[in-house]
Amino acid sequence: MGKEFAKGDHVVGIDIGGTKIMATVFDHQYKPVGSCRKKAKNAKKDESAEDRIIRIVQTALEEAGGPSIRGIGVGSPGPLDPETGVIIDTPNLGWKNFPLADVLSKHFKTSVVVDNDVNVGTYGEWSFGEINSCQDVVGVFPGTGIGGGIIINGKLLHGFSGAAGEIGHMTIEVDGPYCGCGKRGCLEALASRIAIAKELAALAAREDAPFIAEKCGSDIAKIRSGVISKAIEAGEPMVEGVVRKAAFYVGIAVSNLINILSPEAVVLGGGLVEAMEKLYLEEVKRAVKEHAMPFLRKDVKIVPAKLGDDAVVLGGARMIVERLTAKG
Amino acid sequence: MGKEFAKGDHVVGIDIGGTKIMATVFDHQYKPVGSCRKKAKNAKKDESAEDRIIRIVQTALEEAGGPSIRGIGVGSPGPLDPETGVIIDTPNLGWKNFPLADVLSKHFKTSVVVDNDVNVGTYGEWSFGEINSCQDVVGVFPGTGIGGGIIINGKLLHGFSGAAGEIGHMTIEVDGPYCGCGKRGCLEALASRIAIAKELAALAAREDAPFIAEKCGSDIAKIRSGVISKAIEAGEPMVEGVVRKAAFYVGIAVSNLINILSPEAVVLGGGLVEAMEKLYLEEVKRAVKEHAMPFLRKDVKIVPAKLGDDAVVLGGARMIVERLTAKG
Repeated sequence: MGKEFAKGDHVVGIDIGGTKIMATVFDHQYKPVGSCRKKAKNAKKDESAEDRIIRIVQTALEEAGGPSIRGIGVGSPGPLDPETGVIIDTPNLGWKNFPLADVLSKHFKTSVVVDNDVNVGTYGEWSFGEINSCQDVVGVFPGTGIGGGIIINGKLLHGFSGAAGEIGHMTIEVDGPYCGCGKRGCLEALASRIAIAKELAALAAREDAPFIAEKCGSDIAKIRSGVISKAIEAGEPMVEGVVRKAAFYVGIAVSNLINILSPEAVVLGGGLVEAMEKLYLEEVKRAVKEHAMPFLRKDVKIVPAKLGDDAVVLGGARMIVERLTAKG
Repeated sequence: MGKEFAKGDHVVGIDIGGTKIMATVFDHQYKPVGSCRKKAKNAKKDESAEDRIIRIVQTALEEAGGPSIRGIGVGSPGPLDPETGVIIDTPNLGWKNFPLADVLSKHFKTSVVVDNDVNVGTYGEWSFGEINSCQDVVGVFPGTGIGGGIIINGKLLHGFSGAAGEIGHMTIEVDGPYCGCGKRGCLEALASRIAIAKELAALAAREDAPFIAEKCGSDIAKIRSGVISKAIEAGEPMVEGVVRKAAFYVGIAVSNLINILSPEAVVLGGGLVEAMEKLYLEEVKRAVKEHAMPFLRKDVKIVPAKLGDDAVVLGGARMIVERLTAKG
């Protein structure tokens, strides 16, 4: 403990996502020196999620020339206990009260830190982005769900349950549409990719969005960020209207977070924002001007995420280094 | 600095409210030994707010037998800078960039800490209540406005602007009713005393709330917590329905705070809650069960405030003692 992260040292960042798992080995300057990325679903049916993760890390280490590592930082779906690194329940990976940190720590004989993937991504964007001087930061990642990471005084907020930051289930429209969580009017029910796709599928079915209809039919599952962005470029005004409205809802949620937490910066990432950054940020900023209190929104930076798919592996690397080099 | 708050020591807590100003002198066990409370409006027109406050503190000190004091803790309407004790803008008291901490510090030759009144009240309820063992606490005070105080890791959250906790202006119903802040669908617009009184005045005008009609006519300004509570006791079902709905809205906002911050305890205070505690907490808890995520709401304590009108003076006293006795 306390020893600096110096030349010759390496750490690994792992991103366990819903569709893919990625591991990257970083040197002491956070330069990637080896990486491996595979689908989250097993090709071989008999391989457990943990065995698959270990194999992916080993491949990344081999690519890096087999350095010894000082630690591993992992972003995983939750809920999980960030203190013990136990994953409480992720049906997708077949884990229930699974001691992920211990399993990786024993296998690789090194220190491991595990946190929620959105927290780790927020930490990455904060650590390596233009907002690094800000001590109070909120990360918002709209996608299939809408995740949030909260940094207060330079530290991730976990709260009593360990799972703070569930901003996707903030009610912003009482008695609004149903959400996957079972309640109504959640931000996710109004602004996630699925909420957008639902509207676009209806447009396609009514022949109001020919580009979407041609590429995806009216199947919600096929309407992804890339197609949506191309439909807007192709000049479909109703598609643009639907996306702007969803982004505006996200902006209302961001305003609520500003009114409650008073962050210095808000970073917006995820597939939807990446595919339509300019339009998306315009609407979020417009909502913030309308819905956040003037004294609290003053000088708040609203910026797009910059690390793309590397946010979680970089954030994980940074978190384990912070842990290893912490004073006292 | 660092010297304990010991026998023979005294501090003063000041509560600067919209309608009244109160100062209380406390001994080393936080027992009140002198107090003075007056209307906030000047009886003599030529007295400034600061002169009035000084006179109220002096009266409280005289009642206490004129002890020397180690410090003063003040809860004041905001926005204000809790680091410098400068009040940024409170038209009600005629202050604009007014250095309240400095003025009191010079006059009484002692240390002064100033914070937002809702923050100080929350701190008081936390310091002296059953939830003192909880490190992450949210205070919610519905009244004419709806204020919030947030404690994270045992410390008040101020955020980048210094004014975090503006929970009354959380949007929970997009395009809902107009709020005093100019935007729509804020919690305050749906659940403050004025929002309730508005509905009750309409009931009274339509002869659906005879108790309210008899006591207050249909004048919103006259419909206060006490009368509302008595109308419910008198068996007016629509009055009860209106209050329950407002409390449920507050519960939705509390759910949002639980989903975002994951506190261990939520304390509810203010005139409305005091007047109708059982009914109010029932609705808040019902909303939380519906609107907060199961993993985050688990084991969260939702409790009524216990200090009543003394919350701010006690909180102020505690804050200045913490400041004076802080290590390092």
